Amino acid sequence: MDFRHHSWDKAFRIPFGALPMGSTVTLKVCATNIYHLRLRTYTSDQEQWHIMIASEEPNYWETTLTLPEAAGILWYDFSFESNGRAYTYGTQSDHLGGEGQIYESSPPSYQITLYDPKRKSPKWYTQGIMYQIFPDRFNRGSDFNIDNFSPNALLHPNWNDSPHYFRGVDDKIDYWDFFGGTLTGITEKLDYLKSLNVTILYLNPIFKSPSNHRYDTGDYMTIDPVLGTLESFMTLATECKKRNIAIILDGVFSHTGDDSLYFNRFGNYPESGAFQSLESPYYPWYNFIQYPHKYSCWWGVDAMPNTNEMHPAFQDFIFKNKNSVIRYWMNAGASGWRLDVADELPDPFITGLKEAMLEQNQESILIGEVWEDASRKIAYDELRTYFSGHELDAVMNYPFREAFIDFLLGQKSAPQIQRLMMSLYEHYPKEQFMGNMNLIGSHDRRRILTVLGEADEYLKDTEREHFRLSESQYKLAKKRLKLLSLIQMTFPGVPCIYYGDEVGVQGFQDPYNRRTYPWGNEDNELLDWYRQITELHAKNSVLQRGSWQPYEAGDDLFVFERADNHDTCLCLFNRNSKAIHLYEDPRYIRCIGIDLLTNATVSLDTIVIEPLSYAIIAVKNKKELTLM
Amino acid sequence: MDFRHHSWDKAFRIPFGALPMGSTVTLKVCATNIYHLRLRTYTSDQEQWHIMIASEEPNYWETTLTLPEAAGILWYDFSFESNGRAYTYGTQSDHLGGEGQIYESSPPSYQITLYDPKRKSPKWYTQGIMYQIFPDRFNRGSDFNIDNFSPNALLHPNWNDSPHYFRGVDDKIDYWDFFGGTLTGITEKLDYLKSLNVTILYLNPIFKSPSNHRYDTGDYMTIDPVLGTLESFMTLATECKKRNIAIILDGVFSHTGDDSLYFNRFGNYPESGAFQSLESPYYPWYNFIQYPHKYSCWWGVDAMPNTNEMHPAFQDFIFKNKNSVIRYWMNAGASGWRLDVADELPDPFITGLKEAMLEQNQESILIGEVWEDASRKIAYDELRTYFSGHELDAVMNYPFREAFIDFLLGQKSAPQIQRLMMSLYEHYPKEQFMGNMNLIGSHDRRRILTVLGEADEYLKDTEREHFRLSESQYKLAKKRLKLLSLIQMTFPGVPCIYYGDEVGVQGFQDPYNRRTYPWGNEDNELLDWYRQITELHAKNSVLQRGSWQPYEAGDDLFVFERADNHDTCLCLFNRNSKAIHLYEDPRYIRCIGIDLLTNATVSLDTIVIEPLSYAIIAVKNKKELTLM
Repeated sequence: MDFRHHSWDKAFRIPFGALPMGSTVTLKVCATNIYHLRLRTYTSDQEQWHIMIASEEPNYWETTLTLPEAAGILWYDFSFESNGRAYTYGTQSDHLGGEGQIYESSPPSYQITLYDPKRKSPKWYTQGIMYQIFPDRFNRGSDFNIDNFSPNALLHPNWNDSPHYFRGVDDKIDYWDFFGGTLTGITEKLDYLKSLNVTILYLNPIFKSPSNHRYDTGDYMTIDPVLGTLESFMTLATECKKRNIAIILDGVFSHTGDDSLYFNRFGNYPESGAFQSLESPYYPWYNFIQYPHKYSCWWGVDAMPNTNEMHPAFQDFIFKNKNSVIRYWMNAGASGWRLDVADELPDPFITGLKEAMLEQNQESILIGEVWEDASRKIAYDELRTYFSGHELDAVMNYPFREAFIDFLLGQKSAPQIQRLMMSLYEHYPKEQFMGNMNLIGSHDRRRILTVLGEADEYLKDTEREHFRLSESQYKLAKKRLKLLSLIQMTFPGVPCIYYGDEVGVQGFQDPYNRRTYPWGNEDNELLDWYRQITELHAKNSVLQRGSWQPYEAGDDLFVFERADNHDTCLCLFNRNSKAIHLYEDPRYIRCIGIDLLTNATVSLDTIVIEPLSYAIIAVKNKKELTLM
Repeated sequence: MDFRHHSWDKAFRIPFGALPMGSTVTLKVCATNIYHLRLRTYTSDQEQWHIMIASEEPNYWETTLTLPEAAGILWYDFSFESNGRAYTYGTQSDHLGGEGQIYESSPPSYQITLYDPKRKSPKWYTQGIMYQIFPDRFNRGSDFNIDNFSPNALLHPNWNDSPHYFRGVDDKIDYWDFFGGTLTGITEKLDYLKSLNVTILYLNPIFKSPSNHRYDTGDYMTIDPVLGTLESFMTLATECKKRNIAIILDGVFSHTGDDSLYFNRFGNYPESGAFQSLESPYYPWYNFIQYPHKYSCWWGVDAMPNTNEMHPAFQDFIFKNKNSVIRYWMNAGASGWRLDVADELPDPFITGLKEAMLEQNQESILIGEVWEDASRKIAYDELRTYFSGHELDAVMNYPFREAFIDFLLGQKSAPQIQRLMMSLYEHYPKEQFMGNMNLIGSHDRRRILTVLGEADEYLKDTEREHFRLSESQYKLAKKRLKLLSLIQMTFPGVPCIYYGDEVGVQGFQDPYNRRTYPWGNEDNELLDWYRQITELHAKNSVLQRGSWQPYEAGDDLFVFERADNHDTCLCLFNRNSKAIHLYEDPRYIRCIGIDLLTNATVSLDTIVIEPLSYAIIAVKNKKELTLM
């Protein structure tokens, strides 16, 4: 008995990947010595069994399905009998698709993501380079004024100090420490961003709030006074626009702060809040378990009471009203939103919010904070429909980050990484795959150099605060970072640079990953590298929107091709400490190209990829290249 | 058998109190039915027995002694026999002097303090009113600049926040919190001080140091950049001089900081420090037990390594050299020093330092931090000679503070307090008694209102931080504070106001007693009171230098007289919640006076002292007054 299906191979499934709802797909299997072959398909609602018919090709069976009209996932697997026993066939136990395997019980099913193809992401987004700023830590602008701080804020007068959590009883943070970055400070550094070919500025929350991260919103309609004013935001937006930089704001709607205009636990706001009175207009925004001290809150953090996202008044305030949060800030200059903890927001809320955004600006963009494969995310027992075409344009691509860190640290092989990326490629609608926010650092993860330098994770917190890589660790980490950042700049999606990663900032998990940008102490060699590779991305549209095709080239070499009607670009990354000789691979024989980083003409069948090195080659005679 | 001696009574000891060395004193006893009477005197060096001869007065025995030529204490007691048994007679077991008692064993001895009477304290000091400022917390001046802070300093942008100790492992302070007071800030408020009739400004340490209290000196020759510059100090001095305000600096010489030019534990200073090298010129300044990590330090706090005060190079640096610390800052404008932890400084060090001060300025003043009766202080098993006439001009009068707090809180009666004060009066040379720095608050004690409001001492530290007296507690505390501050302004010595006490600042032990001065939130009623009583002190020289005579007037009424050649002033303080009628006391019959606070004419034999009230009466017909 033989049985095979391979979801990435056109011989078995066509078209590839996610498909428009209501479109058709042909599925094939290749098998010998089997009978009673059935294809099973199912959605959240319905299960169906399909007969497969013999193809023209010997030993192949096929069926063509008309896909459901609803966005979501169509799952499928196969069942058959052989030698009197019943078998099934599905994807491997890692659920990643591709070639599957035979089971004797219920198998993991293959996935076809169904979406409404109407929406195309705007070019300014998919072809851009993003820069993420944690506003308190980027630049203390000329408008900095200590009078703007709230009671109990602590300021580090010294810009280069370490951030610190000042915890009290129950490990709660008693005092938030600030460094005094401002919006005007960002405006004053826009030419710096421009020198990095940045076109999209993603800001962590900027609305009034007691903390330094501002995920505990105090007032959605006010720029935090510590950061600036409506005017300084609008100036930032205007100056960004002059430089073709779009602004993406952090939308934190699953919860507010307890110290907010709405909840008003401490009476710091003049209006009566939900905590203070059942008569408060904001009372219905929250879920009280025992009024007023027990309420639903984010991850048990009582400083962040959860909102009732489905309450009409809340939706009116956040996105429906003419002057709602979403619309107000888009009018003031934002081109998009990053949705904090999207998993906590009901799909209808996201759909409504997206609708409002499109009403404001057809070219706006909505990015979700989702940590896993967002096409199949199940949150609170429900399959999410982020990629329906009516919700998220993109997600933060944490799987990308993790996969390539594992690759560079030798924890996963190139074929394993290829399989992970192919799975996203298959599961994500093309717009979402091409719009993936490809990050390698964020305010929620250790600094990339600290990760790539393999800093000891078992340090005490006090040791972490002041830890820096040794010179040799740093050297190695930097080499790896060059590879990783170059992967980021050549991989499909929108590369996002976490402020400071480009100049050598180190740090463990927060707060140490939120150190200040080290003005005057930059690693300029690294910065030059970032300028070079962001320019590579900016100047080569094939790297922005070209198709993607990975190659197998051994455990240590990650290779993929980007191609469009004009150009073909081969990207090669050697994680190994030994040089890799491609001339051993027959596929590269007689291929000539230009190394885009050195401008040298290279012959692909004699090229050597040095240890911890790379090559981005514009291939001149593509037709001789044999794709997988 | 009868036996009596009373050291405060001219019938038994004449002259009263501390005496010039080499002068004479006559001691008498009154006794019946005794024989073998002997007077024993001794000093640290020598014991002597003296025969007493019968006085002219019946039952009195006396002897006149020529006192030793060395400063120090002459102790004395008596022995005798009666009915075949041996007895002794000495002061009571509280060692306070006055009337003594018969013992059958070795008695506590009476004390005669011996001093060199050459030195008279300058009038600017003894007739002044002092104001103590903890420099970080008084006023953020127009020169405030966050760029002046050192790494790891934390600033409270909000002036009205609570100070806080940010402790880490081992309870050590990891971060020092600052509010940003500056010397220029003080200069900008000198007219405020003037409105309080202040003539002496005592500043807690102002030299460069990592902490907010600056008792861990980093560099004796540099004003802490956070506070200002040499120039801003000299401007402060000049502006003070214009207003007849003298400056007293805090001299912290028993230890330096570990993060100092001299010890340089962290290499923050360019020169090689004692911690870094045995070759360092500063190595001999310190006492290493095991080089370099174990060394003698202040109270085990390793951030404060003890100095070798007797090392010639250290003394050269501190006071001997032309440009020594003491001289340099006196040249820059200081009129005196407050010696931190005087008990830790050897007498020869203090003598040398005082000598240098007098060379600089004959009118300079040296005040010691001594917490007990400084005339008899034994530190490290050695009797100190602070009051030799060559060391301290005055001490911080903590016994005064404690006694009158006990009186106001009903923990000790007026006669008990009188006894405590009489003991100081007897033991201290007149200049030191009249120069006592009479404080009721300091950076080392709970805020006086918090004490007088009887705030619960058993609160958790987190509760203390935010504790404020209830309205009724505050009201009571304020009434008591009015009494206490008025005692302070009428009692012999130099009253010292701890910044903010005059406007209602509350707070437990440090750091909560080091809150900021509440500009804009002053208790103006209290402030008016302070302006009134400081003016009372400033305008009535009898309250500055007049003799002092306490009266017995029951448990709840504390009464004393101040008198000079021109004026007599009777000061009455009723701690009770019931009014006290003085007409019951025959001593006040037919006495007429002017109430100096109300300007009303009063008849002393009909005056009523209201509950928690007071009267300061300029007595017009003193001759009819019978003193004790």
